[in-house]
Amino acid sequence: MAKKVCLVLGAGAGIGGTVATKFAREGYHACLCRRSDQEGLDNLVEQIKESGGHASGFILDATEEGSLENLILQIEKDIGEIAVLVYNLGAQSGMKLLNETSLNEFEWGWRVGNFGLFRAAKVLMPIMVKRGYGTFLVTSATAAMRGNKNQHSHATAMGGRRMLCQTLNAEFASQGIHVAHVIVDGMVDAPDTLGKMLGKERFQELRDTKGKEDGLILPTEIAETYYYLSQQHRSSWTHEIDIRSFSDKAWWN
Amino acid sequence: MAKKVCLVLGAGAGIGGTVATKFAREGYHACLCRRSDQEGLDNLVEQIKESGGHASGFILDATEEGSLENLILQIEKDIGEIAVLVYNLGAQSGMKLLNETSLNEFEWGWRVGNFGLFRAAKVLMPIMVKRGYGTFLVTSATAAMRGNKNQHSHATAMGGRRMLCQTLNAEFASQGIHVAHVIVDGMVDAPDTLGKMLGKERFQELRDTKGKEDGLILPTEIAETYYYLSQQHRSSWTHEIDIRSFSDKAWWN
Amino acid sequence: MAKKVCLVLGAGAGIGGTVATKFAREGYHACLCRRSDQEGLDNLVEQIKESGGHASGFILDATEEGSLENLILQIEKDIGEIAVLVYNLGAQSGMKLLNETSLNEFEWGWRVGNFGLFRAAKVLMPIMVKRGYGTFLVTSATAAMRGNKNQHSHATAMGGRRMLCQTLNAEFASQGIHVAHVIVDGMVDAPDTLGKMLGKERFQELRDTKGKEDGLILPTEIAETYYYLSQQHRSSWTHEIDIRSFSDKAWWN
Amino acid sequence: MAKKVCLVLGAGAGIGGTVATKFAREGYHACLCRRSDQEGLDNLVEQIKESGGHASGFILDATEEGSLENLILQIEKDIGEIAVLVYNLGAQSGMKLLNETSLNEFEWGWRVGNFGLFRAAKVLMPIMVKRGYGTFLVTSATAAMRGNKNQHSHATAMGGRRMLCQTLNAEFASQGIHVAHVIVDGMVDAPDTLGKMLGKERFQELRDTKGKEDGLILPTEIAETYYYLSQQHRSSWTHEIDIRSFSDKAWWN
Repeated sequence: MAKKVCLVLGAGAGIGGTVATKFAREGYHACLCRRSDQEGLDNLVEQIKESGGHASGFILDATEEGSLENLILQIEKDIGEIAVLVYNLGAQSGMKLLNETSLNEFEWGWRVGNFGLFRAAKVLMPIMVKRGYGTFLVTSATAAMRGNKNQHSHATAMGGRRMLCQTLNAEFASQGIHVAHVIVDGMVDAPDTLGKMLGKERFQELRDTKGKEDGLILPTEIAETYYYLSQQHRSSWTHEIDIRSFSDKAWWN
Repeated sequence: MAKKVCLVLGAGAGIGGTVATKFAREGYHACLCRRSDQEGLDNLVEQIKESGGHASGFILDATEEGSLENLILQIEKDIGEIAVLVYNLGAQSGMKLLNETSLNEFEWGWRVGNFGLFRAAKVLMPIMVKRGYGTFLVTSATAAMRGNKNQHSHATAMGGRRMLCQTLNAEFASQGIHVAHVIVDGMVDAPDTLGKMLGKERFQELRDTKGKEDGLILPTEIAETYYYLSQQHRSSWTHEIDIRSFSDKAWWN
Repeated sequence: MAKKVCLVLGAGAGIGGTVATKFAREGYHACLCRRSDQEGLDNLVEQIKESGGHASGFILDATEEGSLENLILQIEKDIGEIAVLVYNLGAQSGMKLLNETSLNEFEWGWRVGNFGLFRAAKVLMPIMVKRGYGTFLVTSATAAMRGNKNQHSHATAMGGRRMLCQTLNAEFASQGIHVAHVIVDGMVDAPDTLGKMLGKERFQELRDTKGKEDGLILPTEIAETYYYLSQQHRSSWTHEIDIRSFSDKAWWN
Repeated sequence: MAKKVCLVLGAGAGIGGTVATKFAREGYHACLCRRSDQEGLDNLVEQIKESGGHASGFILDATEEGSLENLILQIEKDIGEIAVLVYNLGAQSGMKLLNETSLNEFEWGWRVGNFGLFRAAKVLMPIMVKRGYGTFLVTSATAAMRGNKNQHSHATAMGGRRMLCQTLNAEFASQGIHVAHVIVDGMVDAPDTLGKMLGKERFQELRDTKGKEDGLILPTEIAETYYYLSQQHRSSWTHEIDIRSFSDKAWWN
């Protein structure tokens, strides 16, 4: 019960799992939560433990009513104080034109993109405020900054997420809660997201070419950024930061 | 059947009704759609007709499944080609801190703020594309640009709406459909929205002071802007425009 | 002396000259000012006069000390009240990498891009404030919104210009002066700027292809936008507006 | 000659001097450059040396022709490879309305705000490109993001600076040079800038109240950010980051 907890929502073998691993290495109890793949989850938790860290895994559908809320309360009760929440649930459902984007898909984008963050904040913010500190690290994407043609669902969700991060920051920063919106502006070397989108072969090819030349954003490096943000002194907090490979164009170019 | 239709979703006694009236005066058949207040709706339609214009009124809950979709198809079949869609459904639910903002309210913000526009686009865009032209004029707000502390639901919805306008523009502009995102950055002299939010007395007081000095945005002037946008030549379209009173600070100041 | 004056700084055969012509048609005395090409200037003035409008032409190097200032005072004294200033001096000096951009060029970008507008405001704002009204319409470019690699001088100048428009608006809007920043986000069908940059042949080719399909922004349509902005009621002013061809991608896409 | 150099332009007793001290502690040879106050400069250099670091001080008017250029070449020749350039020259000249802002002041804003950075890049970028790596850390301000009414000179300069950082990043990131634009969005606990602006007494008062509660941005914490940015792996670079106290409103709120 003494340990501070870092809860990662969306902890696959990419940003989420790597960030959890980093926080565990720095002394946090890492709570990894993902929708499916019990085996993948168990592996991540096991690896952390083998390196001497503390970790727990949870399979959970964040869109289910009460799911996030119960998880947060359970962790607070059974494991420790959640000092850092990493909201890493992606809302990308692929490149689709308007007629290819279903109503369900659009709604799902909102449920994981916005509603989940709102629900987590509803439960966790009051707890953190009572303690006088806490950190929300929210993974975001280029689509939060501009809307491309095949991103109807994703961009709507990310644009909303960015504003939600601002409203949360506006209400809670002065109460000691640090909210950061991290714009990941490029492809991430992540088997569970990019890998699944591209397929095994194309993903490996990409790793062997662009990745070899540091053209893919490395989850280990993103984890450094997340950890750095979580440790900023409250006189000097960052709310928004972008990340991309040196060889990629920025979204505005 | 010869007339071109301007369909206004959210046609109260403010921006919506006034825009409808303007388009009717310019020769469009105005279709006014609102959630409630049959009498108010009838009055608006009557006024347009008395001035020699063409108008039809519809009471409709836009969040109901299939409602918008059926309305659009019905108008196309019975009244005429929808040349202009004015998406004027507001998602403002008042100044509320996080603990005052319910899950239902947050979801409602998305349903009218984002999902309704997405659904309307799903049905109407293919029809407009077939004709090779058409205009989406989307009312937006300061909350699309930045998130204030008591705007969790509204800012999330408007931030998403702005991105959705961008994705729609990105896919459909080159097919002849003009999408414009209008940032109304200030209080509008509108009895059905500002009036209801403030109460009758405070609203009248505001009109007598700030309003007397042109400090409230006039719906008739916004209507000029909407009409102007709808008539822009396709070599020179505007996607984003802001509007505020001369005496108000811009949102960024 | 009764007529209201529209002074266009940078009045070549593109946006500037066409805007001047539009304002003359609407009853303003158009004052056209450009750096060189007396013949081209005379032709524009003559055309306006032949159509029954009022116009005067001035050859002037705006970067010369006191030049803009004297012109403004002279017009106020000899011709009439400057109701509208169109600041249309471009600071584009071509696509150049850092080592191709000279110190002189960079300084010139600032002189026409920022300093000229600042100097014009220093002289004209107090005059307009005394009258209680007036309009500054400032032509701007994509480079005000993001910096591309071969735009070191231009983007620096335009980014500064955008902020200067905001500071002028912040100080003077409430005193009745309308400042608008117009983002021209695409190629303009203008022989004196695009034409000279591309050369006669390539420009004609572009007109015959992209231009034929409304892919070049038409100065006559921009002139409509400028005139529209100048006529907005002060309850409902626009500070920023973008313009691009329907077939072009927005700068953020 | 073996040490890597961190050159700080604008090294007073605030961000600049503290960043230099941090980089010296991490093993860089710190080169501190400022316009005046030889004694203050000597003290900073001495302190670094007493802590076991390497440092050199330079008094230099960066606006003088050739000054920056010569300094860079001299350091490269005599001290070591400039791995990190911290461009920390402020262009703030106080809160002044348009009629209080002189032409000279506006020009000075550009000279230190934009031209100095451009000149430094002209000389140093080719050197860094040859080596395949290097970092430009550029201090920026709220005024880069929006223009307030009494910031005509400052906002123009900072808006231009932001775009210049983008054009430099656009050309040089893919060649291995990391350019970061750091938005310092709040008052910094810095005697040489804020202290001089407010006067000794008011500054001390502010430190005793707002500062006591972490309401002033601490230079030591900014230095952590700068150092963190300089160490980012090139697969995961940040171009833009903001910093403010937890108790301050963000510029957009």
